[in-house]
Formats: sequence, structure tokens, C-alpha cells
Amino acid sequence: MMKLYYAPVTCSLASHIALEEAGADYEPIRVDIRSGQQQSPEYLALNPKGRVPTLVTERGILTETPAILAYIAQTHRAAELAPIDDPFALGEVQAFNSYLCSTVHVGHAHRMRGGRWADDAEARASMTAKVAQNMGDYFGVIESRMFRGPWVMGDHYTIADPYLFTISNWLEGDGVDIKRFPKVADHFARMKTRPAVAKVLEVVNAKV
Amino acid sequence: MMKLYYAPVTCSLASHIALEEAGADYEPIRVDIRSGQQQSPEYLALNPKGRVPTLVTERGILTETPAILAYIAQTHRAAELAPIDDPFALGEVQAFNSYLCSTVHVGHAHRMRGGRWADDAEARASMTAKVAQNMGDYFGVIESRMFRGPWVMGDHYTIADPYLFTISNWLEGDGVDIKRFPKVADHFARMKTRPAVAKVLEVVNAKV
Repeated sequence: MMKLYYAPVTCSLASHIALEEAGADYEPIRVDIRSGQQQSPEYLALNPKGRVPTLVTERGILTETPAILAYIAQTHRAAELAPIDDPFALGEVQAFNSYLCSTVHVGHAHRMRGGRWADDAEARASMTAKVAQNMGDYFGVIESRMFRGPWVMGDHYTIADPYLFTISNWLEGDGVDIKRFPKVADHFARMKTRPAVAKVLEVVNAKV
Repeated sequence: MMKLYYAPVTCSLASHIALEEAGADYEPIRVDIRSGQQQSPEYLALNPKGRVPTLVTERGILTETPAILAYIAQTHRAAELAPIDDPFALGEVQAFNSYLCSTVHVGHAHRMRGGRWADDAEARASMTAKVAQNMGDYFGVIESRMFRGPWVMGDHYTIADPYLFTISNWLEGDGVDIKRFPKVADHFARMKTRPAVAKVLEVVNAKV
């Protein structure tokens, strides 16, 4: 059985939902980020980067959301979570997920995690102040140029959908009204009605 | 024939090398970033994110280095640039590339591109000041925990190698001595001796 190390309100939600959609045999294990468990020697032995998600498989350990999502799709083909046999279509999925990972998630991280990139409080406050503008710009590109509908890639639900849902969920905290992006807002609402999503949210949001 | 939109001293070098290693049928097209060509209406029509690389294929357009690298490997199987038929091994390649994309490249970008995340000059200076420390930390993890040798993934050269080479090439400008990381330094030197790498560097570094 695989093990997914996750934490609430982080990007691990995307992999968590994908595992559930795939019908995968996995155990979710919560990492207490508030107490710094991700920096413990035990966790760093699994993932030297000290982040979530970490997926422990029979073959070894995988990290990084885009890599884990593609792995889940490739190892659970019956769930049809990615166009695995079409390199170009798969490339489009991967390009979307890579944009979320390297630009949109990074933009969001400047609100609370500015200490990664600057030591002084004034600089961190300056980064925080720009997050709403950046996230609005990024989602503007998604809404107008990338999102096909009804799912990210068009008619077929893919691993891009739980990843977009995960980051859309951060917009309110980032000071961005999701209603500015009608397609994204509709997608966000529809995602919540999927049984796999509801089940994972119940696990993730449970008090411990 | 594919078209690769590239710019010198950017991450497009990784895709450029991979195309050459694959023996792909492609034309490299230089984008003049200094004059802001990547923000021209013509370029934004290809890539609304205004960045390089952009790969134009017969099927359509791909962006984002990890996606383009995987696409090149999947469409040029004879070059054996990734373990395409082994989802776990491919996942390890993708995890490495995703780390370069979302953490290491982003860390580097705070030296010159801090204006993406903060408007005032003091904050940008504060970000620049932390880049050497961050890049040193990131490459410390690569050296001690990720790099297998002689290539990134072990015995086989993969799409992770040109990507690591591309970012290793930024260390000197970031104020980090590559000699602190002997495996990475050896890799960097060996990469330069590959005919495909030498050919691409000649194209990229040519005066225009």
C-alpha cells in the first residue's frame, strides 16, 4: 500500500484527490506543519526538501506534485486521468501543471512564506502586498487562455483538475474574488460535488 | 518541423539541448528578451505567459521546461532520454525536473527578477541578497541526496541532465562556487564535452 504524506491547506490536496479518483490503494498520513514536523529528521529522511506531498511507493519515494500526479495517472490507467498514450496531449496537461507549480503556487507562497526569499520583515510585507495582483494576473491567463471547459483540458477530467481546484481554493485567502473568473469559479464549485473530492476534503479538514 | 523559441542565458537551454540530443527536426528562433520581444503581441499569441521556451509542434504549442523535456523524450524514443515505459523511474526524473523548475529556478529568479514579487527597490535588494544562500542550500540537497552519478539519474543520461546543466551554469552569477558541489561540478564539465551541448552553446552564444 502506498503512503501519502499530506498537510491541510497545502498542494498535497491535489495528489490526495488524484489517488482517490484513481481508486488507489493508499494510506494518507498527516504531517503537522504548524509544529514543524516536516523538518524533523524522520521526515527529512523521506523528503530532504521538507515539504509535502511525499508519496511512498513499493519502488521508492516520489515528491513534487506534477511528478506524483503523472505517476498516479500512469499507474492507474483505468481511471483515465491523463492522455497517457498521446505525448502531445499529455504535454499540454504537464504544461498546465508546471505553470501551477512554478508560477501560480510560487506567487501564492509569497504571502505567507516570503521568508524563503528575504530575511527582513519589510521585504516580506512588500511581497505579501503584491500577492493579490499576481494571483489575479495568473488566473486571468488561466481563465482567458488555458481553461477549455468543462474541465481544464476540455471534455475529459484529468490530473490538471484537482491541481487547479487546490490552488483555486487559496484565492479567497490571497484576497482575490474567484467570481472574476467565471469558468474557474464554475469549475471550483463542480469539483466540490465529486465524491472523491468530498471524501478527501472530509479527511483533510477533520480536527485532530 | 518544430520551432523552439529560445533566449540566451535562460532555461530554454535545457529544451534546446534535449532537442539536439534527440536528433529532432527543429528550428531554433531567438527571442530578444532585452528589448522585451517576449511581451510583444506576436509572441504573446504563441505563449500568453511571455516567457521562453515555447515549442511549436505540428499538433500545437507546448510551454514549460519540464513538459517540453518529457515531450521530446516521448516523441524521440530511440534517443532514450527518459525511462518512458517505467512510471516510477519516469516519476523520479519528473520529480527532479519539477524541483529545478519550481524551487531552484525560482530561487535564482529572485536575483534579477524580484520585481515579479515586490514593487519596491529595497525589497528587491533584500531578495537579491539571499540568492547565494538559497542556491547553495538547493544545490547542497542535489549534491548530497539527489544526484546519483555519473548522470543525474545514474548510469543513463536523461532529460534531467541538460536541465541541471542549464541551472548549474547560473551558479557563478548567483555568487555560488560550483566547486562546493564536486559531483555537480564534474557533471557540469562533462556536459560541455558532449557534441550536442557544444553545438547548442555555439548557437546560443553567437553574437547577433
